[in-house]
Amino acid sequence: MLTEEITKLIQDTASGEVFGVWFLIGAALVFFMQAGFAMVETGFTRAKNAGNIIMKNLMDFCIGTVVFVLLGFSLMMAEDYVLGFIGVPNLDILTDFGGFLKGGNAPVFVFNLVFCATAATIVSGAMAERTKFISYCIYSGVISLFVYPIEAGWVWNSNGWLVKLGFHDFAGSAAIHSVGGITALIGAIMVGPRLGKYIKDKAGKVNKVNAIPGHSITLGALGCFILWFGWYGFNGAAAWDNESLASIFVTTTVAPAVATCVTMIFTWLKNGKPDVSMCINASLAGLVGITAGCDALDALGSAVVGVVSGFLVVFVVELLDIKLHIDDPVGAVGVHLANGVWGTIAVGLLANPSAPAGLNGLFYTGSFKLLGIQLVGITAILAWTAAMMTGTFFVLKKTIGLRVSQEEEIKGLDRTEHGLPSAYADFVPAVESINYGYDGAVAVSGETPVAEAIPVKKVPAVVDSGAPKFTKIEIVCKEPRFEALKNAMMEIGITGMTVSHVLGCGVQKGQPEYYRGVPVEANLLPKIQVDIVVSKVPVRTVIETAKKVLYTGHIGDGKIFVYDVENVVKVRTGEEGYDALQDVE
Amino acid sequence: MLTEEITKLIQDTASGEVFGVWFLIGAALVFFMQAGFAMVETGFTRAKNAGNIIMKNLMDFCIGTVVFVLLGFSLMMAEDYVLGFIGVPNLDILTDFGGFLKGGNAPVFVFNLVFCATAATIVSGAMAERTKFISYCIYSGVISLFVYPIEAGWVWNSNGWLVKLGFHDFAGSAAIHSVGGITALIGAIMVGPRLGKYIKDKAGKVNKVNAIPGHSITLGALGCFILWFGWYGFNGAAAWDNESLASIFVTTTVAPAVATCVTMIFTWLKNGKPDVSMCINASLAGLVGITAGCDALDALGSAVVGVVSGFLVVFVVELLDIKLHIDDPVGAVGVHLANGVWGTIAVGLLANPSAPAGLNGLFYTGSFKLLGIQLVGITAILAWTAAMMTGTFFVLKKTIGLRVSQEEEIKGLDRTEHGLPSAYADFVPAVESINYGYDGAVAVSGETPVAEAIPVKKVPAVVDSGAPKFTKIEIVCKEPRFEALKNAMMEIGITGMTVSHVLGCGVQKGQPEYYRGVPVEANLLPKIQVDIVVSKVPVRTVIETAKKVLYTGHIGDGKIFVYDVENVVKVRTGEEGYDALQDVE
Amino acid sequence: MLTEEITKLIQDTASGEVFGVWFLIGAALVFFMQAGFAMVETGFTRAKNAGNIIMKNLMDFCIGTVVFVLLGFSLMMAEDYVLGFIGVPNLDILTDFGGFLKGGNAPVFVFNLVFCATAATIVSGAMAERTKFISYCIYSGVISLFVYPIEAGWVWNSNGWLVKLGFHDFAGSAAIHSVGGITALIGAIMVGPRLGKYIKDKAGKVNKVNAIPGHSITLGALGCFILWFGWYGFNGAAAWDNESLASIFVTTTVAPAVATCVTMIFTWLKNGKPDVSMCINASLAGLVGITAGCDALDALGSAVVGVVSGFLVVFVVELLDIKLHIDDPVGAVGVHLANGVWGTIAVGLLANPSAPAGLNGLFYTGSFKLLGIQLVGITAILAWTAAMMTGTFFVLKKTIGLRVSQEEEIKGLDRTEHGLPSAYADFVPAVESINYGYDGAVAVSGETPVAEAIPVKKVPAVVDSGAPKFTKIEIVCKEPRFEALKNAMMEIGITGMTVSHVLGCGVQKGQPEYYRGVPVEANLLPKIQVDIVVSKVPVRTVIETAKKVLYTGHIGDGKIFVYDVENVVKVRTGEEGYDALQDVE
Repeated sequence: MLTEEITKLIQDTASGEVFGVWFLIGAALVFFMQAGFAMVETGFTRAKNAGNIIMKNLMDFCIGTVVFVLLGFSLMMAEDYVLGFIGVPNLDILTDFGGFLKGGNAPVFVFNLVFCATAATIVSGAMAERTKFISYCIYSGVISLFVYPIEAGWVWNSNGWLVKLGFHDFAGSAAIHSVGGITALIGAIMVGPRLGKYIKDKAGKVNKVNAIPGHSITLGALGCFILWFGWYGFNGAAAWDNESLASIFVTTTVAPAVATCVTMIFTWLKNGKPDVSMCINASLAGLVGITAGCDALDALGSAVVGVVSGFLVVFVVELLDIKLHIDDPVGAVGVHLANGVWGTIAVGLLANPSAPAGLNGLFYTGSFKLLGIQLVGITAILAWTAAMMTGTFFVLKKTIGLRVSQEEEIKGLDRTEHGLPSAYADFVPAVESINYGYDGAVAVSGETPVAEAIPVKKVPAVVDSGAPKFTKIEIVCKEPRFEALKNAMMEIGITGMTVSHVLGCGVQKGQPEYYRGVPVEANLLPKIQVDIVVSKVPVRTVIETAKKVLYTGHIGDGKIFVYDVENVVKVRTGEEGYDALQDVE
Repeated sequence: MLTEEITKLIQDTASGEVFGVWFLIGAALVFFMQAGFAMVETGFTRAKNAGNIIMKNLMDFCIGTVVFVLLGFSLMMAEDYVLGFIGVPNLDILTDFGGFLKGGNAPVFVFNLVFCATAATIVSGAMAERTKFISYCIYSGVISLFVYPIEAGWVWNSNGWLVKLGFHDFAGSAAIHSVGGITALIGAIMVGPRLGKYIKDKAGKVNKVNAIPGHSITLGALGCFILWFGWYGFNGAAAWDNESLASIFVTTTVAPAVATCVTMIFTWLKNGKPDVSMCINASLAGLVGITAGCDALDALGSAVVGVVSGFLVVFVVELLDIKLHIDDPVGAVGVHLANGVWGTIAVGLLANPSAPAGLNGLFYTGSFKLLGIQLVGITAILAWTAAMMTGTFFVLKKTIGLRVSQEEEIKGLDRTEHGLPSAYADFVPAVESINYGYDGAVAVSGETPVAEAIPVKKVPAVVDSGAPKFTKIEIVCKEPRFEALKNAMMEIGITGMTVSHVLGCGVQKGQPEYYRGVPVEANLLPKIQVDIVVSKVPVRTVIETAKKVLYTGHIGDGKIFVYDVENVVKVRTGEEGYDALQDVE
Repeated sequence: MLTEEITKLIQDTASGEVFGVWFLIGAALVFFMQAGFAMVETGFTRAKNAGNIIMKNLMDFCIGTVVFVLLGFSLMMAEDYVLGFIGVPNLDILTDFGGFLKGGNAPVFVFNLVFCATAATIVSGAMAERTKFISYCIYSGVISLFVYPIEAGWVWNSNGWLVKLGFHDFAGSAAIHSVGGITALIGAIMVGPRLGKYIKDKAGKVNKVNAIPGHSITLGALGCFILWFGWYGFNGAAAWDNESLASIFVTTTVAPAVATCVTMIFTWLKNGKPDVSMCINASLAGLVGITAGCDALDALGSAVVGVVSGFLVVFVVELLDIKLHIDDPVGAVGVHLANGVWGTIAVGLLANPSAPAGLNGLFYTGSFKLLGIQLVGITAILAWTAAMMTGTFFVLKKTIGLRVSQEEEIKGLDRTEHGLPSAYADFVPAVESINYGYDGAVAVSGETPVAEAIPVKKVPAVVDSGAPKFTKIEIVCKEPRFEALKNAMMEIGITGMTVSHVLGCGVQKGQPEYYRGVPVEANLLPKIQVDIVVSKVPVRTVIETAKKVLYTGHIGDGKIFVYDVENVVKVRTGEEGYDALQDVE
């Protein structure tokens, strides 16, 4: 007798300890999903906005933490409830930390915080590449401050009205993903499409939809893998025993796998080729779809969820883009809203009484009850969120403004919102603007201490007097000297030049390098080519100045080529010939 | 007395609970290894195939999951065994989920599924950059459907004949890595080397081996770190107590660390410089080498495994590439096959009876028994896999074909197999093909509403009549206007142009931007340069059309330069002069 | 009565088992931080050094493991202590593995090893882009061999003198981060700034500080997320019960979130825009700051730590860069040294007796005792490390040298230290140097089997006799043919050419591709443009040779354009005209 009692005690104690720690490990995994979102969102958008997207993801978590500490958490998980609707705020975490810990609130806080940040971060992708950073920060604070906490309290605080109703959303298809997704939809509509996404005819009707491919599908895919990995924590953290955890792992694996296969086949049949970025979306769609019922569905049910998710994500992404002309760069609406709703409903349809949650889905029991409750719940959550977020975005639009200027959008938000010349300084057309002080010498613009030593052959000037002549001077030089060259050219009155990265190829033979044991030839060296067209400034002045600046006496100092130009036109003013070269552009 | 019994019960219960959860955490870590494989494989290959590699990795897991649910799992882990060889299939996971859970099958399923997907995914790297996607999908389905499950059942199903024999492969040097590795070798041979990898002389003998560097060693290294991290789950998941787990962590750390040091020193001495990508391979080689005996070797033994792995991976990679001319872009054979075999044998040699597994290796006990069993096991596994996979690839080659066309291979598999213009739309030479509707205006090809307003100075036409004259028109403009310019040029009969990214440099002075508190000058702006050579189409037409399309009235609208051209040659037809410009290319 | 005793036993046993496994999971998370460091450091530096940074991170761990096995671990954690100062070395891990396991040393070893590697790897970022690889390897070995183990023994070996004193550094603000940070500072000073970072006037005074932006802020941010994720293991691994672990998770979340918000607002106000890379640093600064007191501070205290960290990192980064002209490319000193010291002191100020550690901070208890001890500890640790590392770097500088040559630094360490042409072969200006054997034919430089079949129209030579004439020949061709073209040109005496990536744009119409369901036009094809200027070599020879090499008979073989050149200047010699073209460069 004793043994039975003790066995039970042992079992419960051990299980409690284990799942207490697992709960926190799960929370850490959910935190890591922020990295996944950041990679998917930046990978699916353009390089010129990469730093901005990254920053939005980072700040979603950081701002979210601050406001969740200050208000969100107590709104959500308070023991006292106002109108059965909203928790009573308190600041125990700041004022009574000992009591907060003793009350077992710390794990709950961490867990709900990382969930909250997930809801917030879904939106950044849909509004990417054109939303003002400050408005985004404010939105992010608002959703984490009370919009998410209040509805999440309905679903997960034991005093929540949806909990009492019997609503089942184990890990947040409704409370997180449909909330993030509906906000993403509202945000994408209110901020409007990116420039160049939809081309209108004279009647204002869209007659062309442009694809704007992302700048790194590789990073997007990395993000997808990170998200899927983190999702084992997202869905599994709140498991209560080994059987429920293992069951959740099964459903959380089957649904996205099936969804991805379905999307692969579907896009293959539809467009002739399997679409990579849509399959990445499909994995996430399947994961969102299984989130509500990960503990309530069986393997077959999760496969069904996956099949529907695989179609749904393609339909919704294309519906928004091609039919409705709502610009959602990363497919957040198709993934999170459509599948968040579907996942919530799927519980009502497919919950298997033999699964750990023991719920009665329509298809297994013939009962519509659970389905009805799920519909009530998702409707309430969407309505609440849509009302709050429409209001928030409306106020932002009318005050600070939601959107950057066209000029800023074209230049990219990295440069205009963050002063970051480029998140990829070495790749996106950009030149290192650095003076190297060779040999310890001091490099001053247009003047080097060794300049006097250059042997200059006297050659008659190329330019004749008479009619204006236009000459192009092409200078090929080492990258590190470019800055000095540019400055020197400006000093002698050159107001415009065209710069490009080229490769100088010479017959230099050095000792071979090895890549994985195989010799590699390396006789292509990176150079800068500067093209200058002059008329007033004498060609000889340009040449002599360039020689002074570029001369170091080492091999590879560069070459200068001179060409005749027949005409020059300046587009903005329509000026031609001499006039076209006389001012600043 | 009671206490002793109880203490044991407590210990066992707690341990069971903990390692039950850890088993699933370990499985999640193994899942994450898919991200590691994806990054290593894409990083070590070229950008034009990045999306394809990513897709193959993703589908390995997704297709693998589907077929493992349908058949693989029950083949592998069935309680009933046919001929002591193959499990009896069932569909319990789909038809009796409650029973499946109660039977404790869910964790076993998840764990074996992620292992199975690992075996499958090893192959994609070796066959990268030239394998047909559909054939790869079929291969991937076949290996997960029955090839892996059957041999893995031998090793890990308690009814398996190798288990009964005493074969020891704790985490799969043989069952996973050598299986993936031998398949990679067969696949690489049967699909043949990438174009340009081996240059043959007239007698058909290879006289030059080319290095084809990967497109991102950074992502490759990230993949290596992810794999190593995941490997603590891979090797550790099945640990049964704290001591065994800690011991596994020690050996799983020492072997790859030693292997990497050995490879660094070895390539440094051999080639004069330490080889980065080979060291990345070496870490993985050490991990593969210690996988079979991670619970059976001691720290010294794992160091020995590492030393051998460090040499072995370099030898095998170079042997395949330089001597045998088998093209394995990521070194999968050197890492997984060579070290999978070595790791399996190492157990027979180096198992320390004091290690958790308590096995008797030759060097510690003088007994050849375990070594003999290990040799039997690895031979059987390799023979089975080689037979099945050779057959599979042979059938694929004779039917659908294993390989893409030369044209497709040169263009890259992203474009040809997935319709993805580039996985790096902003980086690999590519221009944004987008019409921006400035100022809300409607941008139609070659016509803007403001066109009438352009002030055009009348200038006499540059072109004389008489002998055909060739003229080059160089247009430097803003990136967003390129698409409109291109369309307008085609409308006036320009059939070819050369486009490049350049930087326009002017004297604009704005307010400074800050990068980490330091002001950054930003007077280099990205532009597009379009070069057009004309003879029949009047130069003036080109200029006026370009002006119309490019004009917005803002600074930076661009410039047009005109040059004389002496001659033009079209390579394909050998036509020169006027004729060379008259058709489409 | 029995029950109470048993309950306690059950509780302790279960807790022991769970936290034993969590300790190792935490260690795995700390290992994963190596990936985070690698990504932050490579992302914040230039592409030409990416492979080198990666390699340094990888070798930090691998070399560290070897020396930690051989000596470090026993120095640190020995039971016998010499002078109460240094452990007595032994090699139990290698010689008595059974005893090592039984003694419970394996988890301690793994845990301390991954911590040790973290300290070592902090330094690589501060010395990035100019440090000799071999010197770095030696440094890395030295710090892990005895510098870190000895001071870490003071802090964490129960026999350590700082432990006995009551010094509190739970996860290593002092023992790891300030150690890595002070070493980073010394290293950065001794190796000197990167070329071009600080421009001096003639008096040798710095009159300009250049920003050198990193090559991938995206990867840097990924690294930050990985580090933050891993930090839950770093700070949490040694937690002893659920309450302490949850409390650590709270503080480890709040401090970095607050720090990041503070830095965002601070840089926004100071520079006009929120600085992305500084915010990434701020997250890490907050994490470093909370590391010592993660178990001793409350939520409010960790917010205070975060506020200070957020300001501190910006001040120190700018102080070093703008005032002191110490070049720390990744901000390692600002993050790890400044905040390591701050975090250590913060324990003395802000420890809340109600937090799990139960320590008495000044602000909660009015006692200066703990603060005094913290100051003693941090001083001792910094003094020891500074002395040892200054000595190490001094010896290295005087013997092997710390720094690569200017030439090597400009070319990049990937190429010069590792023979890696580029870590991004497809992106950084580089051309695939590969001969493709089209149609199975053998491609030999400058000769193709089909050459005889080219239809050549006879055209009179363009070059007149008489005065030297300079002609530019511009060849636009397919990328795969470039290598053959280059070789053929060299054979006919062309000693220099300029190569660039361009896009060929023609009117080819194929079937559309789809990106996410939207058709994508793909009529811009990547090409290579080769510019050659000749005088001695006849233009006709160049044209005919190019035609032979490039001809395949397929669309897209390319075009050749010929231009008149007025003059050529060679910068190094000052030669003009004919002479400027006559030799090798």
